[in-house]
Amino acid sequence: MKVLASYVSGAWVEGKGKPQTLVNPANEEPLAHASTEGIDFGAALAFARKKGGAALRAMTYGERGELLRAMSRVIHGNRDPLLDLAMANGGNTRSDAKFDVDGASGTLAFYAELAKELGGRKVLLDGDAVQLARGPRFVGQHILSPRRGVAVHVNAFNFPAWGLGEKAACALLAGMPIVVKPATSTAIVAHRIVELIVEAKILPEGALSLVAGPPGDLLDHLTGEDVLSFTGGGSTAAALRAGAPIVHDSVRVNVEADSLNSAVLGPDADASSDTYNAFLRDVARDMTQKTGQKCTAIRRIFAPRALAEQVAEDLRSRLQDVVVGDPTADKVTMGPVATASQLRDVRAGIERLASEAKRLLGDGPLSPVGAPAGKGYFVPPTLFFIDRPTEAQHVHAHEVFGPVATVMPYDSPSEAVALVRRGGGGLVTSVYADDRAAVAELALGIASAHGRVVVTSAKIADQTPGPGTVLPHSIHGGPGKAGGGEELGGVRGLGFYSQRTAIQGDRAILEAVLAS
Amino acid sequence: MKVLASYVSGAWVEGKGKPQTLVNPANEEPLAHASTEGIDFGAALAFARKKGGAALRAMTYGERGELLRAMSRVIHGNRDPLLDLAMANGGNTRSDAKFDVDGASGTLAFYAELAKELGGRKVLLDGDAVQLARGPRFVGQHILSPRRGVAVHVNAFNFPAWGLGEKAACALLAGMPIVVKPATSTAIVAHRIVELIVEAKILPEGALSLVAGPPGDLLDHLTGEDVLSFTGGGSTAAALRAGAPIVHDSVRVNVEADSLNSAVLGPDADASSDTYNAFLRDVARDMTQKTGQKCTAIRRIFAPRALAEQVAEDLRSRLQDVVVGDPTADKVTMGPVATASQLRDVRAGIERLASEAKRLLGDGPLSPVGAPAGKGYFVPPTLFFIDRPTEAQHVHAHEVFGPVATVMPYDSPSEAVALVRRGGGGLVTSVYADDRAAVAELALGIASAHGRVVVTSAKIADQTPGPGTVLPHSIHGGPGKAGGGEELGGVRGLGFYSQRTAIQGDRAILEAVLAS
Repeated sequence: MKVLASYVSGAWVEGKGKPQTLVNPANEEPLAHASTEGIDFGAALAFARKKGGAALRAMTYGERGELLRAMSRVIHGNRDPLLDLAMANGGNTRSDAKFDVDGASGTLAFYAELAKELGGRKVLLDGDAVQLARGPRFVGQHILSPRRGVAVHVNAFNFPAWGLGEKAACALLAGMPIVVKPATSTAIVAHRIVELIVEAKILPEGALSLVAGPPGDLLDHLTGEDVLSFTGGGSTAAALRAGAPIVHDSVRVNVEADSLNSAVLGPDADASSDTYNAFLRDVARDMTQKTGQKCTAIRRIFAPRALAEQVAEDLRSRLQDVVVGDPTADKVTMGPVATASQLRDVRAGIERLASEAKRLLGDGPLSPVGAPAGKGYFVPPTLFFIDRPTEAQHVHAHEVFGPVATVMPYDSPSEAVALVRRGGGGLVTSVYADDRAAVAELALGIASAHGRVVVTSAKIADQTPGPGTVLPHSIHGGPGKAGGGEELGGVRGLGFYSQRTAIQGDRAILEAVLAS
Repeated sequence: MKVLASYVSGAWVEGKGKPQTLVNPANEEPLAHASTEGIDFGAALAFARKKGGAALRAMTYGERGELLRAMSRVIHGNRDPLLDLAMANGGNTRSDAKFDVDGASGTLAFYAELAKELGGRKVLLDGDAVQLARGPRFVGQHILSPRRGVAVHVNAFNFPAWGLGEKAACALLAGMPIVVKPATSTAIVAHRIVELIVEAKILPEGALSLVAGPPGDLLDHLTGEDVLSFTGGGSTAAALRAGAPIVHDSVRVNVEADSLNSAVLGPDADASSDTYNAFLRDVARDMTQKTGQKCTAIRRIFAPRALAEQVAEDLRSRLQDVVVGDPTADKVTMGPVATASQLRDVRAGIERLASEAKRLLGDGPLSPVGAPAGKGYFVPPTLFFIDRPTEAQHVHAHEVFGPVATVMPYDSPSEAVALVRRGGGGLVTSVYADDRAAVAELALGIASAHGRVVVTSAKIADQTPGPGTVLPHSIHGGPGKAGGGEELGGVRGLGFYSQRTAIQGDRAILEAVLAS
């Protein structure tokens, strides 16, 4: 049995005690063991701060960008074996696995390019120098400089590669060492990526650590200039936020949690249009890609009342073609969910929705292709319909983290805005419309409740990757239930790992001092 | 006895039950009563969100700026009576009171001017549109739009006017209604300012509420798009951060708390220079202005070892001239601290410092001018010296919120950086130096531990207001012990009250929709 070691204080260390077993969710066969018992996390963080932090801060943004480029290349260079691991440990189809692994290498490459623009500097200027007194000499210049702590990244089970890559890109480029803690159940891919980076000697000592297994007392050792970035469920997020270092020591925390993302078909919709087809395409893909286990997946589908039944029927028809099974088997287009507990949660969520919604798809017997009888964490694409969504509760409150969504009619754009807002803050909502007044009312009406709004119209229908794809150019995060955080967004993503400081003084002296 | 009513849900309401008594800290005579018992804070917040939020969002940034201008004018127009109230209730000298009241009107006026540049828009663009696909049409544009909640402002006792004004300016301009909760002990000035604004009918209904007295269950009613901005002690901040709306509902919180601000005399110092004189002037003023009750006041004074004793003697000499007493009495240059409990805390802090430091000033008997015998919360300017600051503990860990500071020698710039950093994150540190290499080592060495660094050199020595003055152009806040928050900084100050959203779509459609 493979044992996943952790990489801390510059060495690979296996935990003691009873390990957690990682399985293949398509057949429940064990793949690896992981334990972190006995690992000195306090020492691990201190090592990262001292060794990794100093080494990264000695480099320019441009030099750090080259580290990201090398990380991107080593991931891309090992793409096929990484895809195989993702398919085995994550229940991913090959396409799902590419989405994760290529997302990691792509995001790292994006930030490597961005680093070129930031160039040979060690602090970033934020805006221009502003005159502070009558005379022109006394000015204020805001700068960003690396926080002198360690960045702990607690990642979700659904994107072991991308989650590692997107967080690592921003932190390392900003000049902070990272400690990556992937979700244990699907940690094999992240573990292998860290192994590859360590073997290739890409990063300075202490810049990258890995916790493969339970976090133990890791987070208790965070202090003032450290940061914690968490992706996962809202209840875990709440527990982390109440932790002593965050409450008492102002440790910065970024949370990306639950989200009841919506797709809104505009009031100007026409079922024969490219916009309508893009809407169907995006919803069907987002529901089933990664078996619906994407924080950005569409959970609520709003359509003008006159079109709602057609939308439901057209989606049902597309989703019927999905082939559920072991992703290594021929013709399978959707794998299992990642763990037994995810399966329990999804089934419970489906039952909750069924209490207030009509089930259009997902009710029949399920015979997963290529899976041993009675084994594997499979769930069918499941489509619901709610005729009176203003009266519904669960559909606006509980994220079902699987291939499950609900179609709902709306009677006016303002009602659509109010219904979308019932989600209590989300990562992304997509609007499918060409009429500018409709776009304005919908997109601006929901903007403050979201980190991202995707407006899909006829002329770009064939260019967008769909709302479920997080592009590094745009921020990723959202208010309220979505956790209130913000990642990526080009250079914006460096802000979390940097301290903004207003430097006030003589213009000539500041220009000289800040030139490098 | 004057009773301070609260202004909630569009009406003045007096609380029931036993009130808190506000006194004149120079003679302990009661000035007013305040109670909030029985006030429905849930309804008050709902009213602010619904009425105030909608009215503010219907206005452009330029129009909201005009509200700020009117607020600034009504404060400035009532300057003299407000100064009298501050002197009576806050223990302020007239100069201290101006610092607070003019700070409020000035900051509001600054943001009124800034609003002109933002002009006739209802959403702000954040950066440029960025191309997201091969073709030029599909782009992402980040915007800022007002959060659809209420901003609760919990202010500190030391700046009842400025605290109200600086937070109000950013929130109202960003489009969020505010609920102001001044510290009860010195609430008379804030109460009068709100009265003036309400009487002048400057703001739309619901845009401004006042809680004059204890907060009761006010903060339990915060929800997803609300924000909480707190200025005050670190232990209260920790309690607020652990509150359910913040932990579970991602309510945004900004904290400005404790700070062991330093002044560092550079290694190139020359005791006959303008830079040296500016250093002495700033330290002496910052120690005694507002009786040392400024979050930005200098607590730790670092000088090159060869000059440290002269620095201590020069400061002692300046501070000896301070006349302590009732600020309404002739020749008094420093009033009492604001409350009996502040006096207790300051005295305890002085004792703690005395356990590891030599007291150079502040040990003798104190005869406050114009105060009844045995009355008033007076404390003398108190100067300490610590010869081996690396071995000291309390001076780097405990903020004494009064006219108290400690001179300490350093042996190298890198040691000075390490000593400043012992403070665990602060609001501002000032560096007094002309040598560029020294400025670079000191200012960049401490930057990530601060929200602001002031570099004072010979040519601007007569232009700077000193590090204790918060200018609205530059951010105010700091990491770690200082709370991890950020206020002001020109347009940056609007970020906290806005949601940043990436809007993705067809460039032509987005440009049309976002033009207004």
